[in-house]
Amino acid sequence: MQDIKQYIEENKDRFLEELFELIRIPSISSDSSRKEDMRKASEQWARILLEAGADNARVMETKGHPVVFGEKKVDENAPTVLVYGHTDVMPVDPVDLWDTDPFEPVIKDGKIWARGADDDKGQAFMHAKAFEYLVKTNQLKCNVKFLIEGEEEIGSANLPEFCENNKDLLKADVILVSDTSMLGAGTPSITTGLRGLAYWQVDVTGPNRDLHSGIYGGAVANPINVLSKMIGDLIDENGHITIPGFYDDVMEVSEQERTLMAKAPFDEDAYKKSIDVKELHGEKGYATPERTGIRPSFDACGIWGGFTGEGAKTVLPSKAHAKLSSRLVPNQNHEKIAQQFKEYFESVAPDSVKVEVSVLHGGQAYVCPIDMPAYQAAEMAYQQTFKKRPVPVRSGGSIPIISTFEQILGIKSVLMGFGLESDAIHSPNENFPLDQFFKGIETIPYFYKHYSEMKK
Amino acid sequence: MQDIKQYIEENKDRFLEELFELIRIPSISSDSSRKEDMRKASEQWARILLEAGADNARVMETKGHPVVFGEKKVDENAPTVLVYGHTDVMPVDPVDLWDTDPFEPVIKDGKIWARGADDDKGQAFMHAKAFEYLVKTNQLKCNVKFLIEGEEEIGSANLPEFCENNKDLLKADVILVSDTSMLGAGTPSITTGLRGLAYWQVDVTGPNRDLHSGIYGGAVANPINVLSKMIGDLIDENGHITIPGFYDDVMEVSEQERTLMAKAPFDEDAYKKSIDVKELHGEKGYATPERTGIRPSFDACGIWGGFTGEGAKTVLPSKAHAKLSSRLVPNQNHEKIAQQFKEYFESVAPDSVKVEVSVLHGGQAYVCPIDMPAYQAAEMAYQQTFKKRPVPVRSGGSIPIISTFEQILGIKSVLMGFGLESDAIHSPNENFPLDQFFKGIETIPYFYKHYSEMKK
Repeated sequence: MQDIKQYIEENKDRFLEELFELIRIPSISSDSSRKEDMRKASEQWARILLEAGADNARVMETKGHPVVFGEKKVDENAPTVLVYGHTDVMPVDPVDLWDTDPFEPVIKDGKIWARGADDDKGQAFMHAKAFEYLVKTNQLKCNVKFLIEGEEEIGSANLPEFCENNKDLLKADVILVSDTSMLGAGTPSITTGLRGLAYWQVDVTGPNRDLHSGIYGGAVANPINVLSKMIGDLIDENGHITIPGFYDDVMEVSEQERTLMAKAPFDEDAYKKSIDVKELHGEKGYATPERTGIRPSFDACGIWGGFTGEGAKTVLPSKAHAKLSSRLVPNQNHEKIAQQFKEYFESVAPDSVKVEVSVLHGGQAYVCPIDMPAYQAAEMAYQQTFKKRPVPVRSGGSIPIISTFEQILGIKSVLMGFGLESDAIHSPNENFPLDQFFKGIETIPYFYKHYSEMKK
Repeated sequence: MQDIKQYIEENKDRFLEELFELIRIPSISSDSSRKEDMRKASEQWARILLEAGADNARVMETKGHPVVFGEKKVDENAPTVLVYGHTDVMPVDPVDLWDTDPFEPVIKDGKIWARGADDDKGQAFMHAKAFEYLVKTNQLKCNVKFLIEGEEEIGSANLPEFCENNKDLLKADVILVSDTSMLGAGTPSITTGLRGLAYWQVDVTGPNRDLHSGIYGGAVANPINVLSKMIGDLIDENGHITIPGFYDDVMEVSEQERTLMAKAPFDEDAYKKSIDVKELHGEKGYATPERTGIRPSFDACGIWGGFTGEGAKTVLPSKAHAKLSSRLVPNQNHEKIAQQFKEYFESVAPDSVKVEVSVLHGGQAYVCPIDMPAYQAAEMAYQQTFKKRPVPVRSGGSIPIISTFEQILGIKSVLMGFGLESDAIHSPNENFPLDQFFKGIETIPYFYKHYSEMKK
């Protein structure tokens, strides 16, 4: 493994060129006009895997965007690592807030700037190059499979069925994923928990048409007023979510673990400054990292209705809509929560409007036990390259497919993320520091080394 | 006056043709690409007035769309009536809900179907034809002035300044306006009250960019959640508006007048059915006509923020916005209310967000005393043609310029409306029944007759 640094040094320009070729494909999974680009990105991934040394790699169909599967068998008695990543990216709106073209990557200030630079083209691509190194230098001691999907940013709707239908193909001892962040460039960490997710659209209908707000205002319920009140009432003055039964299954974290978590470095002033807010706000009795790590949350992701143009048009609108979502913690069942909210929200709707709740999306939370061999192999790998023991961290984000893998395939995942908070994933000016990119390629081979030694 | 019916009968086709010519000009004042059409419509109005018998008529400039002024002097000792109307119309969106081209009037089922058929091309045009009749038959006994503006649908922003600068030109004893509705085709009424208006935009900013709702959700205030709560709290469980001091200046209506008002025909079931709502909702202790007639209201006219596209994008948005408005009643000062709301809303904003309130528009409420000679002349005119005494009605709508006329010019207005609730003004398929149109032309000359006799 001593030559990995040299291998990166000799090939870094080619690595970047290959990554940029992938990034240039605008594979926005939520945009139906990008269907062909989604396919092109998948085909590109199959080529990447074959060129890196896979025995075979192919684009496989789903009911939605295709997935890519590739593998390399070295020894049927050796353990098998399944690498999961995704080739789809988030939309780029508002595009005028980008300093450069989101799909024409540039290197500036030591970072790659582009949509997907981190999430997840950049991070998944590190695995292809680490794999290439191990194959080309004959140091691969375990079997490797790659599963690159095209619908992660839209909820991986078709991947569960793909897993059900391909259990043998996907058989592995552990799933390895780089789609998360580290605490900081000098503070390696491994994500050991992910929040679950429930996501709804609510549609409120008042009168059958937009009304004159003078002639009817005061006598007819206004759907925006009603929806606002209903959303406003979902969180009480202590930051508690008011849906009955919402906290019933929440796994309470012990005082001991909370004390440990509190030791993780967290600079509240820097945090506030980075997002330019004067005060933070959340559930009473919990610190900021706890509010995102071990407690569920409730956020309106979008709201719209009535007149939203320039100036002052008076109208009592017929409809109001919102996209609402909740991040869930271990032991909360997203389907149960989705139903609880739907029943509650519809039950508290006044008779003066019609309220419809649609469940759009969901996923379970996930926990990775830190005494698992694969976790320990990852820990040793980071220690080798970052010279520090990585901190186990509960992330506030959700990768619903991770818990689905556990349910359907019975395989745990290890989340070796190399992203940084400042990478602005899902936002304009997404970026990925070159240091993190190359450090990732350097670290991953050590995971394989330690993991195959442990499992011998 | 006995020959007015015959005059209408002999000229009705020409009247309609002339009106249609005016309607065909798509004079949407809010649409900057229609600037030339606004001018064309004004020039058309000048021609209409000259052909009807005005001594002079001209298009006059303002900082916005022009106004038309025309006049006929018959006797300097006789009273002067100033007819006010507007030639601009509302936008036609959503245009696919129209059964016919909004700017190509058609007659069907005894109605004229077109944008502006009622509001206010049709109604203002009745005055031109009533005036033509009086001039051509030598029965005009008072001086007449016409003021036709082009910005009523966008708040008459430049008319106050025009009035300030042209006080002599606009000098009159009463202003006559047809821009309101009657209670029903067989139930003549005169609008004696108009609600005032205050209109704000509120902009709530949380973090400086859209955030990942997983990574930050629960720890950072969500501007949509905050705005929803703030809007929701503006009205309490009794339907009262919670802005401190909001009701301080509200002119309470006596029990006696409320009892009289309660005698006006109102069919709640038909009302609910016409807008397809199961229950009405408003201020506790007041009946529906009171809620829109004598009580102020608070409506969100629009709201927007975050992700509003198809599907499920998770985001903790940076911003949320709303257009909020309040209909005011006599004695409430719109500037005071606008300021009260701004101060209150900004003061209750949590420190976790920035809240900015902009006052976009406003106007005072108006009351027309029913013992005023001009009101009584109007009452007699309706009685002559509709064979029923018109009911005085407090309308929920606002025509802010009416109270501005009173403030700047010191002249009261009489609102002789001939529209019907079913005319769908501001909505797709606006229409104006031919019966109402011709009945208007028939009624207006009697107003002049009685008014000039009273003022002798």
